[in-house]
Amino acid sequence: MYESYWRKMGNKCDITFNGDDSLSYFANGKSLCWFLESKLEEQIKRLHNVVENAIVDDYYIVVGTGSSQLMQAALYALSPTDQLEPISVVSATPFYSSYPEVTDFVKSGLHKWAGDARTFEKNGPFIEFITSPNNPDGVVREPVVNGNQGKLIYDLAYYWPQYTAITSPANHDVMLFTISKCTGHAGSRIGWALVKDKEVAKKMTKFIEISTIGVSKEAQLRAAKILEVVSDSCLDPKMENFFEYSQSLMSDRWKRLRQVVMDNNFFVLQKYPFQYCLFTKDFCESHPAFAWLICKGGEEEDCQKLLKEHKIHTRSGRRFGSDLRNVRISMLSRDEDFNIFLKRLTTIRGPTNEN
Amino acid sequence: MYESYWRKMGNKCDITFNGDDSLSYFANGKSLCWFLESKLEEQIKRLHNVVENAIVDDYYIVVGTGSSQLMQAALYALSPTDQLEPISVVSATPFYSSYPEVTDFVKSGLHKWAGDARTFEKNGPFIEFITSPNNPDGVVREPVVNGNQGKLIYDLAYYWPQYTAITSPANHDVMLFTISKCTGHAGSRIGWALVKDKEVAKKMTKFIEISTIGVSKEAQLRAAKILEVVSDSCLDPKMENFFEYSQSLMSDRWKRLRQVVMDNNFFVLQKYPFQYCLFTKDFCESHPAFAWLICKGGEEEDCQKLLKEHKIHTRSGRRFGSDLRNVRISMLSRDEDFNIFLKRLTTIRGPTNEN
Repeated sequence: MYESYWRKMGNKCDITFNGDDSLSYFANGKSLCWFLESKLEEQIKRLHNVVENAIVDDYYIVVGTGSSQLMQAALYALSPTDQLEPISVVSATPFYSSYPEVTDFVKSGLHKWAGDARTFEKNGPFIEFITSPNNPDGVVREPVVNGNQGKLIYDLAYYWPQYTAITSPANHDVMLFTISKCTGHAGSRIGWALVKDKEVAKKMTKFIEISTIGVSKEAQLRAAKILEVVSDSCLDPKMENFFEYSQSLMSDRWKRLRQVVMDNNFFVLQKYPFQYCLFTKDFCESHPAFAWLICKGGEEEDCQKLLKEHKIHTRSGRRFGSDLRNVRISMLSRDEDFNIFLKRLTTIRGPTNEN
Repeated sequence: MYESYWRKMGNKCDITFNGDDSLSYFANGKSLCWFLESKLEEQIKRLHNVVENAIVDDYYIVVGTGSSQLMQAALYALSPTDQLEPISVVSATPFYSSYPEVTDFVKSGLHKWAGDARTFEKNGPFIEFITSPNNPDGVVREPVVNGNQGKLIYDLAYYWPQYTAITSPANHDVMLFTISKCTGHAGSRIGWALVKDKEVAKKMTKFIEISTIGVSKEAQLRAAKILEVVSDSCLDPKMENFFEYSQSLMSDRWKRLRQVVMDNNFFVLQKYPFQYCLFTKDFCESHPAFAWLICKGGEEEDCQKLLKEHKIHTRSGRRFGSDLRNVRISMLSRDEDFNIFLKRLTTIRGPTNEN
């Protein structure tokens, strides 16, 4: 959905590769993560410093083929190797629908999906995913399991000013980011982890070494270029600030969605607090990347099915460990798709609007 | 080592990305592999047809982040899901040193490394990796396990004319290739599988979807460009044929290595048959990407240790399921590194050369 911004930037983001570029497995940097390109490392640090959404000093950066690979790398690095039983992996419902699959798809003996963090009561070590703001519901989150043997993975894919107020620079042990949610370049498959502990960073790097022998150089160098332009746009008053632009797009979409939802009186939308944002230096609302829609009908109302009948494609709450009344809808679709979605949603009428 | 070729090609391989290119997860093609760029698909098919090293008609193409990811995808797709025990994965020694690690690194319950295919005697289903020409020893291989419940993964990374004679177009059920060994672009992390069975191709695609949500667009599009130039160079008499160029580089290096090995009378090198190559239309020798060096000393001679004392970096035969007398040496290093290696090797003298 940020395509219009990138089109406007013209050739500012152009990057050309020659035939003899990037032949080697190895990167040119001196990072612990031996395949991390130094230009990308530099631009990741710079952007976090500009946005103030995460501390980078004294953190190790591990680059991954999107943040999915980094989730697996983090699970690999944080799972004990001396246990007979795989470690339990949890996240509070509604959780990102890929966590169960990513944890269990090869039936790993290292880690095992154990469902909702709120009802997790097993003693012993566990890993908790904390997605903040959360996918699917956009809520800012904290860990929920009480237990001193927990290892935490913070998935901060949506902790950028267009989605939520930047309330303080995050400084957790393991934090995951991805360019796809930050700038919209999902096709590049570039994510990065900020990792406090050296041994954890080493093990994550090892995972990516075994899994894919590093991360595409072309994708890394292009990502570096894109992040550079984003930082430039925040600092250079002559440029259009990327986050202001994308925030205004999100704000407009949310306003229109809230209006339709109010009009048809059939759904409830998640509410978000008004918070002061360090980046915009102003109070602002959240504009999550997904809308978490709740049908007003009874518990057995199948919201996904109902919307499908109106040709609206959503993901059922069930996929997020929640119930049938909920669905997740992308707020990042292309303009024409978003307009069609709103138009179709308008035609649905709640009981009080019926004749 | 093919850098000089790519430098010579000048701007023929240049590719430029604009800010608004490749934003989406999805590719523009209609392939079963939903993230495969149609340009790459087209150039993969074209190159195999030009080189005649593999049949592509009626095969599904699955793109991966290097062939390592495709190995895991193939294991995932070929492992039965209805068994209590993980399926045994084997390969004949000396086998590619990453197979055990790739199979077992997350302690998968789907598949388990079971070592040397030659001594494998368990009844029931198994998966055999057949690397041909083989890494580390360059030998052309066939499956070795007798058993009708075997599923075969052909790793054909080195089945290109600069390394070996192309004796017939390969037409196995699952065949893996990678751009890193074909053209030298290891940093792009692009591999592809040719898969006969639709369900297997679907499951491999699913694996890559869960693991990394596809493969970098930039890397795919650049790989398409590089493969296009390689095919062009084979068909256009005005261009320098990539495979003739790289074959002559390999041939020169092997000649020099054989001379040094003969002179110092301390090692034995693998021998290869002279074979007719469909691509060069001539009989030719093999020039493998690795030299498999055997110390003439007794069985307990630690060849890797000995060479390390002479500052020669090798990988011990042990890593390939073989013994200490063997080492693998890369024949694809940069010119200056290869020259230093040969110079250092020259200083080692066997017993008959001693005073």
